[in-house]
Amino acid sequence: MELHTRPQRAIDDLLELRRRTSTAAGAQRVAWTETWDSARRLLRERLAELPVDVSVDEAGNLWALLPGDSPDVVIVGSHLDSVPDGGWLDGAYGVMGGLEVLRAAAEQASRPYSLALVDWADEEGARFGRSLFGSAAAAGTLDLDSVRDLTDADGQRLVDVLESYGISLDKMSAARARLARAVAYLELHIEQGPVLEHEGLPIGVVQGTVGIERYVVTFEGVAAHAGSTPIDRRHDAMIPAARTVLAVRETAERNSGVGTVGSVVGEPGIVTATAERATLLVDLRHIDAERLAAMLADAREAAEKAAAAEGCRLRWDRLLSLAPQPFDPRLVERVADACTSVCGAAFELPSGALHDATSIAPHVPTAMLFAASIDGLSHNRSEDSRYEDLRDGVAAFGRLVGSVLTSRPRPDQGS
Amino acid sequence: MELHTRPQRAIDDLLELRRRTSTAAGAQRVAWTETWDSARRLLRERLAELPVDVSVDEAGNLWALLPGDSPDVVIVGSHLDSVPDGGWLDGAYGVMGGLEVLRAAAEQASRPYSLALVDWADEEGARFGRSLFGSAAAAGTLDLDSVRDLTDADGQRLVDVLESYGISLDKMSAARARLARAVAYLELHIEQGPVLEHEGLPIGVVQGTVGIERYVVTFEGVAAHAGSTPIDRRHDAMIPAARTVLAVRETAERNSGVGTVGSVVGEPGIVTATAERATLLVDLRHIDAERLAAMLADAREAAEKAAAAEGCRLRWDRLLSLAPQPFDPRLVERVADACTSVCGAAFELPSGALHDATSIAPHVPTAMLFAASIDGLSHNRSEDSRYEDLRDGVAAFGRLVGSVLTSRPRPDQGS
Repeated sequence: MELHTRPQRAIDDLLELRRRTSTAAGAQRVAWTETWDSARRLLRERLAELPVDVSVDEAGNLWALLPGDSPDVVIVGSHLDSVPDGGWLDGAYGVMGGLEVLRAAAEQASRPYSLALVDWADEEGARFGRSLFGSAAAAGTLDLDSVRDLTDADGQRLVDVLESYGISLDKMSAARARLARAVAYLELHIEQGPVLEHEGLPIGVVQGTVGIERYVVTFEGVAAHAGSTPIDRRHDAMIPAARTVLAVRETAERNSGVGTVGSVVGEPGIVTATAERATLLVDLRHIDAERLAAMLADAREAAEKAAAAEGCRLRWDRLLSLAPQPFDPRLVERVADACTSVCGAAFELPSGALHDATSIAPHVPTAMLFAASIDGLSHNRSEDSRYEDLRDGVAAFGRLVGSVLTSRPRPDQGS
Repeated sequence: MELHTRPQRAIDDLLELRRRTSTAAGAQRVAWTETWDSARRLLRERLAELPVDVSVDEAGNLWALLPGDSPDVVIVGSHLDSVPDGGWLDGAYGVMGGLEVLRAAAEQASRPYSLALVDWADEEGARFGRSLFGSAAAAGTLDLDSVRDLTDADGQRLVDVLESYGISLDKMSAARARLARAVAYLELHIEQGPVLEHEGLPIGVVQGTVGIERYVVTFEGVAAHAGSTPIDRRHDAMIPAARTVLAVRETAERNSGVGTVGSVVGEPGIVTATAERATLLVDLRHIDAERLAAMLADAREAAEKAAAAEGCRLRWDRLLSLAPQPFDPRLVERVADACTSVCGAAFELPSGALHDATSIAPHVPTAMLFAASIDGLSHNRSEDSRYEDLRDGVAAFGRLVGSVLTSRPRPDQGS
C-alpha cells in the first residue's frame, strides 16, 4: 500500500507547535505542564480533522486510532514533551510525522491493519526524573514503587500531579491493553547525533538502542594541605579520578563504543587542599552486549589500579544498567528499503539515546527511522535539521508504514 | 643570653584558649568576631602579669613591648585567629609560645634589645578572603583597593567591620612604623605537614616559604549527547582537564615540588552529556623560583597539547603569583643551632604554607621554627601535635630568641 504523504505539512505543524510552545530559550513542552497541555491541544485540533478515535490511556498516553480491516494494529508515534529550553524536533518530529502518515492512510479507502498514532507521556522525565514514563507503563516495565515518592524541584509530588491529569499510579498498568493487538511499533525521530550529517545522508536505519552502564564512581582519599604535604605523602582522590576519565575514553575508542565522564566533583573542592573525595558520573554505551561488558570491565580495572596506586578507596554505585535493545530484523529491513527508495542509501547506525521504542521493543516488533541533525545538537534551542532532510524522513516513514500496513513482516504472518 | 622558658606553661595557655574559643567542631577564632575578641582577652590577661606595654596598631595587630637597652627590637609572634572549625595550634602556638619567651625574657634584669610579641590580625582571611591581612598592612604590601570592597558571606563590608574595631583602611599603613626599629622577626609555628613526623623529629628549621603559582584553568569544548555522539566527533572538555590533572602531578614529582588540582568542575556536569566547559583550580609551589617556573611551563604545555588534541579552547587566569621567600641565612643558622641544642638535629624544610613571616621577610631579617604535626593535619579540629614536641619547640624558640636578643646576627651588627 502506497501512502501519499505531503511531508511539508508535518513541518508546518512543527512550526506551529514551536510558535505555540517555545520561548526565546527554546521548547518548553515539559510533561505535566500547561505548555505540554497546549502542545497536545494542537495535536487534538489536527486529529479532529481525521476519522480517528482519540483517547488517553491509563498512563496518560494520547492515542488516535484509524480502524482497518483487522483489529490488529500498526502503531506509530513518539512524544510531544521536551526538556526545558529544549529543541523543536526531539519527539515532536515523530508525532507530527506520524500524524502526516495517519492523514495519508486515512485517504485510503481501506487498510488491512488498523493504524494508531501515539503521543507517549513524559518521555524525557524532565520534571520528575523518570524518563520513558508513559511507554514503560504501557509496556508494563515501570516499577511503580520506584516512582511513587518522586517530587519535582518545587516539592510537588508526582502522584498528585498525575491525579490532576486523572491518572492513578496503581491503575496505570491497564495501559498495557493498548499493545495487545499491536503487530508493529514504528518511530520516526531526529538522530540527535552527528553521524548521518557526517555521512552526507538525510536519513538512516536504526539498528536498535544501545545498552547503557551508568555508575557513580567515588574515590576516597585524604584532604591534605596543598603546600605542606609532599607528593609522596598524599592520597589525592583527584589523581585516580583523572586516570579513570582517560580510561573510559580509551576503552570506548578501543571498542568502538561511547564512554563519557560528564561530571567530576572534588571535595572539599578548594585550591589549597588535595581532594578527600572525587565523585565521577560514568556512562558507557554499546549496541553489543559483550563489548559493553568489556568496556565496563576495562574501566573498573583502571579505576581499581589507580585507586590502589594512590592509596584511595573506591566505590562503584550503579545508577542504570540497560541491555542493548536490537530492533526487529525484518522491520529493520523494511526501514532500509524505505530509506533506499527515498535517498538511494540505507545507512545503519545504533541509537545512542534511549527512545520510547526501547520500552516497546521487548513486547512488540519495533523499528526506528532517523532524520539527520545539524551538528548533532539536541536538548537545547539550537537543535535543528534541514527541512529537506525532515521531509525525506517523513516520506520514507510513509513508505515504511504503507509497506507494513499491507503485510506485516512476521514469520506468523497470516496465521 | 639564656632564657629559662617553662614550655608547659605555653601548652596550658593553649588549652585554656581552646576551652574558651572552641566548639565540638573545632576552633572558632575567626578574625573580626566575638570569639576572636575573647581569644585576645585571654592574651591580654596573661600580658597584664608582665612589665610590657600593650597596644593595638593602626592595622589591628596587637603588640606587647618589653623594653631593652636599645629601642632596636626583636619581634616574635604569630596569629590567634583561625579558620572556622579550625585547629587549636595553627597560629595560637606561636603566640602562646612567644608569650612564654616574653615571660622568660622579662625575668632577665636587662636585655640588649627590646623584645616585642605581636598577634597579627587576620592571618587566615577566613571571613573576607584576604589572608596575611595585618602583617601585609604592617609590611606596607596590602593593596588597599583590592580589599576595599570585600564583603563576608552575609554581605557585611570589611570596611564597616574594621571601623567597628576602630580601624580605618586608609590609615592602616601607619602600622609600618612598628617595623622601623626591628632587627629580627622570629615565628614559631606547627608544621601543618607530615615531613617532621615522617623524619621522627620534634622540631625543624624552616628554609623559607615556597613560591606559589595559582591559576584557574578553563577548557572550552562542546556539550554533546553522551549516547549519540561518537568519540571521534567530540570536543569533550573533561579529557584535557584530566590530562592536566596528571601533568600537574607529574611535573611536581619530577621537580620535587608540590602541585595540586583541588577542584575540577564540568559543565553542564550531567551524566548524559560531554562537558562543554571544565574548570580547574591549579596550585603549584616550590621553594626554588626556577623550578617553580619550570613546573608552570610544563603544566601549561601539557594543557595546551591536550586542548589542541581534543579541539578545545584553553584559558589560564592567574589567581596568585608569589615568589619564593627564603629566610635570612644567618637567622636560619641560629634556628638550626637552637634545634640541635634541643633535639640533636637541625632538619631543614621549606614551608609549603604561607605565614605572616612571608609578609615580614622582605623587610626585616626573618626566620621560623616548626614543631611536628600529627598526620600533617591542619585547618580542622583533628589538628594536633604531641605535647613533648610542642614543648621542644618552645624550648628551642626560647634559645633562639635568647641568642638573637644578645647579638643580632647581621653584617652591620653593632653599627
